[in-house]
Amino acid sequence: MQVVNVGVIGLGNVGGGTLRVLAENAQQIELKLGFHLKVTAVCSRNPHVRQLPASLGDVRRTSDWREVVTDPGIHIVAELIGGTTTAHEIIDAAIDNGKSVVTANKELMAMYGFQIWERAIEAKINLAMEASVCGGIPIHAVLREGISGDRITTLYGILNGTSNYILTEIEKHGASFDSVLAEAQRLGYAEADPAADVEGFDARSKLAILSALAFGERITPSDIFTEGIRRISPIDFQYAQRLNYTIRLLCSARQTPQGLILSVRPALIPQDTILAGVRGAYNAVWARGQFGADTFYYGRGAGPLPTGVAVVSDLMRVARELRSGSPERVSPFAHERLGEYEPISVEHEVVAYYLRFRVRDRPGIIAELAGILARKGISLDAVLQLSSETKNDLPFVITLEPASERAVRDAVRQMQELDFLVEPPLVLPMERSL
Amino acid sequence: MQVVNVGVIGLGNVGGGTLRVLAENAQQIELKLGFHLKVTAVCSRNPHVRQLPASLGDVRRTSDWREVVTDPGIHIVAELIGGTTTAHEIIDAAIDNGKSVVTANKELMAMYGFQIWERAIEAKINLAMEASVCGGIPIHAVLREGISGDRITTLYGILNGTSNYILTEIEKHGASFDSVLAEAQRLGYAEADPAADVEGFDARSKLAILSALAFGERITPSDIFTEGIRRISPIDFQYAQRLNYTIRLLCSARQTPQGLILSVRPALIPQDTILAGVRGAYNAVWARGQFGADTFYYGRGAGPLPTGVAVVSDLMRVARELRSGSPERVSPFAHERLGEYEPISVEHEVVAYYLRFRVRDRPGIIAELAGILARKGISLDAVLQLSSETKNDLPFVITLEPASERAVRDAVRQMQELDFLVEPPLVLPMERSL
Repeated sequence: MQVVNVGVIGLGNVGGGTLRVLAENAQQIELKLGFHLKVTAVCSRNPHVRQLPASLGDVRRTSDWREVVTDPGIHIVAELIGGTTTAHEIIDAAIDNGKSVVTANKELMAMYGFQIWERAIEAKINLAMEASVCGGIPIHAVLREGISGDRITTLYGILNGTSNYILTEIEKHGASFDSVLAEAQRLGYAEADPAADVEGFDARSKLAILSALAFGERITPSDIFTEGIRRISPIDFQYAQRLNYTIRLLCSARQTPQGLILSVRPALIPQDTILAGVRGAYNAVWARGQFGADTFYYGRGAGPLPTGVAVVSDLMRVARELRSGSPERVSPFAHERLGEYEPISVEHEVVAYYLRFRVRDRPGIIAELAGILARKGISLDAVLQLSSETKNDLPFVITLEPASERAVRDAVRQMQELDFLVEPPLVLPMERSL
Repeated sequence: MQVVNVGVIGLGNVGGGTLRVLAENAQQIELKLGFHLKVTAVCSRNPHVRQLPASLGDVRRTSDWREVVTDPGIHIVAELIGGTTTAHEIIDAAIDNGKSVVTANKELMAMYGFQIWERAIEAKINLAMEASVCGGIPIHAVLREGISGDRITTLYGILNGTSNYILTEIEKHGASFDSVLAEAQRLGYAEADPAADVEGFDARSKLAILSALAFGERITPSDIFTEGIRRISPIDFQYAQRLNYTIRLLCSARQTPQGLILSVRPALIPQDTILAGVRGAYNAVWARGQFGADTFYYGRGAGPLPTGVAVVSDLMRVARELRSGSPERVSPFAHERLGEYEPISVEHEVVAYYLRFRVRDRPGIIAELAGILARKGISLDAVLQLSSETKNDLPFVITLEPASERAVRDAVRQMQELDFLVEPPLVLPMERSL
């Protein structure tokens, strides 16, 4: 095999970025590989609309993905259309036809990665998915190879660029969530329907894949407690700052004696940690290993070119393995069958908490709240109140000593019946162990 | 090959950490690999002194490394003794005997990596060196695989933990270099002879390897302009802070139209960049790619266990490749033969500069200094003077607009003849593009 042939299915942002990297970096790619990586076919709904880089040479265009996955001349199929229906069919058909597969499909791998990987191993083909999580950060290469000798105990991530952008804008300008979101939509940083980003669903899919890779366990999005950032207000950043913290939509997967606790939710993180320095539309992953201690990875989470680099790097690796006749051996989704890392409810979490209240002021409020907490065995750490003029809607904060999430939730449920609350308390974990 | 056998040469810190990771993480390593990785021999000067983890089972102990590299039962030799003499012999002999090699040897790979790699490829064996740079950060996996599709244009690094610890202590406590160094020596963070760390030589070897990997060019330590941190004083951090910068021993490799500019030296870096958040004995690498934009990697630079994880991860990768019969194909040190990335003198650098003076105060000082700069065509950006009581040893700072390093050096050379200077000006680049 002097040339490895690639069929690219999907010519959207990621497909376009992939072709551009392949075309513009062709010379260096060939020098690094020692052989030629050639795109021989592309497939999209309107395959003749998009102009292809001239340097790619002859490329067959088709609107029928079946032509690509059955083409005997094609060695690797790149699935870049996204979604969980046709994409799943394409990958299954490619595997059935003995093709190796590179995919950038986050939802699909989060939901069905386990099965797809089993199938790939059985068919002795190569499968790669670097681009499915944190486009620009080569976190798969890191977990699969770079620190594969370690045993990950904790994983933290800032995995959604849009919500990180929104939070850092609220922090910087003191504007409300709604106004920052509207501005982000105007600038094209946020979708017209922002739910996937601001409700944490996008980050949840990413955490499902990353924690499956890190812990070798079968994890799907439904294992992950998920809460969005809509309730975070400028006042929360003011209180957080007073406590030497900031607020991020934090993805966390933590090994505990009981099992693996997985969550995506806004959290307070100490200002002097490197994770707090992740601002704007960036992604980051922090891994703590039993032996290698802490490592941290940071880069663009999305964008045609960073994601294109991930796809091309995967194509290069798979092409190398193909030429040496080396198939996938062990699924990154389930190398571990010891059951140590079973996902468990976030209610097992024991951390410090930040409770932010908005109340109609009157005497005895703190006493009532403190009473409820005391009856649940929860210790109060501090009460903070920044100056405010509005007696009818007075914000203040209570921080708690580490307590079980279950107890805190019980307490907060009881608090909701109190007549002086303007809205239910906002409950954020304080991640001191970062 | 149902079992891959490893011979470990060197039972110091790194060797000890490697054996511990192999022993304590044995179950997970085997699950990830799908086969057994077995240490069958260890070699050190006094091979019976060190207690080996019992779970390693039968291990032959020898003080003669030749026994290991010629043992027909051994597939991979781990060279963990360091240095550039015996270690070089060991690796050459292992390659000659058809063994694959994993090394943690920074100096050797910085000096002779190119030749060793050529030899490995010719012999069709596998060679891996993740542990040779930034122990805990899997930067080789990142550059070799994770972002291999990209074309790196700039690389920044904080590559020496000891000097980063010293600088951040000076920053935090306002203590002098000498007193912080003495304290670091007392605590065991710095060697009795601190030259390799504080003069930048250790960082230089690391940058040589990293930039060779990143640019595919043949780079040795002598290509790298190197300056240590001895002259950095608390006052420099005060001025830097005033300018919203901090100071780090910055390793940089930058592609310019003229060639590759390589340096290790203290530099001002903006406070709000993620690189400025690297404090204490940590290492970090920042890579800028033509396509994938900026990525950043951070972790423990040294230590038996983080480095042991790197060695073990390499052993796992090489063992996998061995079993699939896939040798190294292209040297990471010289895949690129285009000559675009030839190292050139740091005098081609064009950046902003920070000049810190200590003078015996008298009228006309600024005028004289500004005159020298003006005659070299260098534009002054600002003059800063924090309050001071010592007329006889008055510190102040001049910052320059971006200028060529050659011109700045010429100017500084002329300044040295001025009678009001207490010591030669301290010249630090200001890295605004981070």
